[in-house]
Amino acid sequence: MLENITPEEARQQIINHTRLLSEEQLPLLKAADRICAREILADTSLPSYAQSAVDGYALAENPADGKDAYWLNSNLKAHENLLAPLQAGQAVGVVTGGTLPHNTWAVVPHEKTVVKGNHLQVRETIKAGQNIKMAGEDYAQGDQLIARASLITPAHLSLLAAYGQDNVAVYRQPRVAVLSLSENIVPVGINPAVGQVWDSNGPLLGALLQKDGGTLISLQTAWGRTPVEIKRWVLNILEQVDILVLTGGTYAETDNEARLLVEEIGAKLLYWGVDIQPGSHTGAALLGSSLIFGLSGNPAACAVGYQLFVAPALQAMQGLTPYPKHQTAICSNGFPKKSGSRRFLRGQAEWNDDGLQVTVLPGQKPSMIRSLLNCNALIDIPAGSPPVEAGSKVSIIWLDSAF
Amino acid sequence: MLENITPEEARQQIINHTRLLSEEQLPLLKAADRICAREILADTSLPSYAQSAVDGYALAENPADGKDAYWLNSNLKAHENLLAPLQAGQAVGVVTGGTLPHNTWAVVPHEKTVVKGNHLQVRETIKAGQNIKMAGEDYAQGDQLIARASLITPAHLSLLAAYGQDNVAVYRQPRVAVLSLSENIVPVGINPAVGQVWDSNGPLLGALLQKDGGTLISLQTAWGRTPVEIKRWVLNILEQVDILVLTGGTYAETDNEARLLVEEIGAKLLYWGVDIQPGSHTGAALLGSSLIFGLSGNPAACAVGYQLFVAPALQAMQGLTPYPKHQTAICSNGFPKKSGSRRFLRGQAEWNDDGLQVTVLPGQKPSMIRSLLNCNALIDIPAGSPPVEAGSKVSIIWLDSAF
Repeated sequence: MLENITPEEARQQIINHTRLLSEEQLPLLKAADRICAREILADTSLPSYAQSAVDGYALAENPADGKDAYWLNSNLKAHENLLAPLQAGQAVGVVTGGTLPHNTWAVVPHEKTVVKGNHLQVRETIKAGQNIKMAGEDYAQGDQLIARASLITPAHLSLLAAYGQDNVAVYRQPRVAVLSLSENIVPVGINPAVGQVWDSNGPLLGALLQKDGGTLISLQTAWGRTPVEIKRWVLNILEQVDILVLTGGTYAETDNEARLLVEEIGAKLLYWGVDIQPGSHTGAALLGSSLIFGLSGNPAACAVGYQLFVAPALQAMQGLTPYPKHQTAICSNGFPKKSGSRRFLRGQAEWNDDGLQVTVLPGQKPSMIRSLLNCNALIDIPAGSPPVEAGSKVSIIWLDSAF
Repeated sequence: MLENITPEEARQQIINHTRLLSEEQLPLLKAADRICAREILADTSLPSYAQSAVDGYALAENPADGKDAYWLNSNLKAHENLLAPLQAGQAVGVVTGGTLPHNTWAVVPHEKTVVKGNHLQVRETIKAGQNIKMAGEDYAQGDQLIARASLITPAHLSLLAAYGQDNVAVYRQPRVAVLSLSENIVPVGINPAVGQVWDSNGPLLGALLQKDGGTLISLQTAWGRTPVEIKRWVLNILEQVDILVLTGGTYAETDNEARLLVEEIGAKLLYWGVDIQPGSHTGAALLGSSLIFGLSGNPAACAVGYQLFVAPALQAMQGLTPYPKHQTAICSNGFPKKSGSRRFLRGQAEWNDDGLQVTVLPGQKPSMIRSLLNCNALIDIPAGSPPVEAGSKVSIIWLDSAF
């Protein structure tokens, strides 16, 4: 069991013990924002035959009168046009995406024509091949429609539908549960006694876990439960979830309620204690294939721990590559304190014409919620750093799921 | 009724006829990513009394032995400490977020102490007020917790929970339906005959509408229905939805199936025809308070029309301000065609150290799906523009919900 390790070592421990979840088939519209489990290649070309790109008329190469008028074959409905090749001087109605008769030279849209009886006059200059979608012009047979382990977007769904697919294989979403352990935390809905506060980490974690693709199975506090009941609840929920997040009760050594609980249920500790600020009192364990995280009960420490340790596990379980995205930014306002340990400040990052800027958000005490508002990046301050000067360069991590 | 108007005029027509939807109360965890319907102010300070910021010990001002050791009052549990003010030289256990006894001078975390019986030795230099959360240090009474008409984030949920709120007022989500009108479109699951293609716009629109907060009530094609049945279906669905999106059948003049349908059901046409490329054949109408959009059946034209006209309506109905976000970008690769009409190219925009760059995506024909893949911005090319040179400045619109 590792102690007082770096966040990179902790992350590696987590990734080493995270398994890719199984596949499931979903109807297209349920698959948006899920992670595709298989590469899909085009089994035919798209379009699979030449089609009209507009609603209008397919034209033979030369007009009937040598100028701009055609004989309109109006006996054929749009989808019957394959039955009769165009003769010289002929035109026939076609629809967007519909077939074109043999010998089609170009297609002209309705609004560029005047029809009088079976006489079609074209009011624009026609170029060969105009408004014809050639077979395979969008996708060729064998082209990749979607890569394995990629996020499924609306455009992918459109493309899969164009190929007649009505479902798609995705990775199952991780099932997750949250338990706020601190004895002075009461759930929203209960009136707190003096010395008690409402559980704010539970809703924070519940919302973040769902943003990152987790299915929230249960969100509880330890309030009103005996240690035996808590242990029983944890063992029961671990049979149902891929990830259990404990928050609070992570303080050091003998009184470490979270760590004691994890040890008592027979989970294998991966690490306990990471050398960061805020949230050094944090750990992870494994029971069967379920990951258990212990996050600090302080709001900002809990939030930072979620982003550094829990979010990567959620990503890896769904087939994403959970690397942090460090970038260099200019810190617009600085930070007045030295950093003994490696420190993760909550920041608001934004590109503008001066480059990538990040603002240290107000309320950076670990006990405060305020710094989470508008936070979309963590500012990664090395251990032993002096105060951050306004205008200096810092390293930031963009958050996939901002607070 | 307006014809051949600018996209800005069309958007204004839509916004003028869009009503803000009613409020509903949701439990916190159902409210993530919804739009808050009311400003919420802090009714008390947070924390409402001084609290410990860590699990550890509250210390009196001076140690018992004049150096670094205190008498530990271990008869009191953490939450009973209010009962007995600290005496000189005394310490008492406290928990994160818990109360502090009167006369607390500072708090020291567990891990910086050694306890032997009722003797507490402190292993770090203590400063006055250390690890004490002052009443109101996070939020003062009257501070804004969330603004009206703002997107509810995980941080907001955490903050509302910290104030004991178990639900929040949000704007109702627009109910939406989609009907693919073109006669040669068949739904996925049906084998297309020659001249027929699968419906790819339906899944595209369904996914986009849901990303923008819509609740998808029905997604249909006109396939296999008579005009009378289509009209009946449309009238019925308009009693259930706030927005109906028609796609396909929008071609010009007398054969405009979408426009004829809208007129037949007695809807008020707001406009028909917008002077853009792709997707000039597009319109909007109003029946009661329901908006009806007619979008082109060509994939890229349908997609551009969705972003320019439908997405703003969805945003306005939920209380968001639907202004397009134009920014100037460098076009990295250019575009070889002149633009007679105002043209919206599909692009991939990205900030980097050289500023904001946009790449024109491959497959820009209106009939192609390919340009939607990786598209997160529209490139807005003025009417009458020459080809776009690589490296030239262009105006882009970031998409709130990328393809």
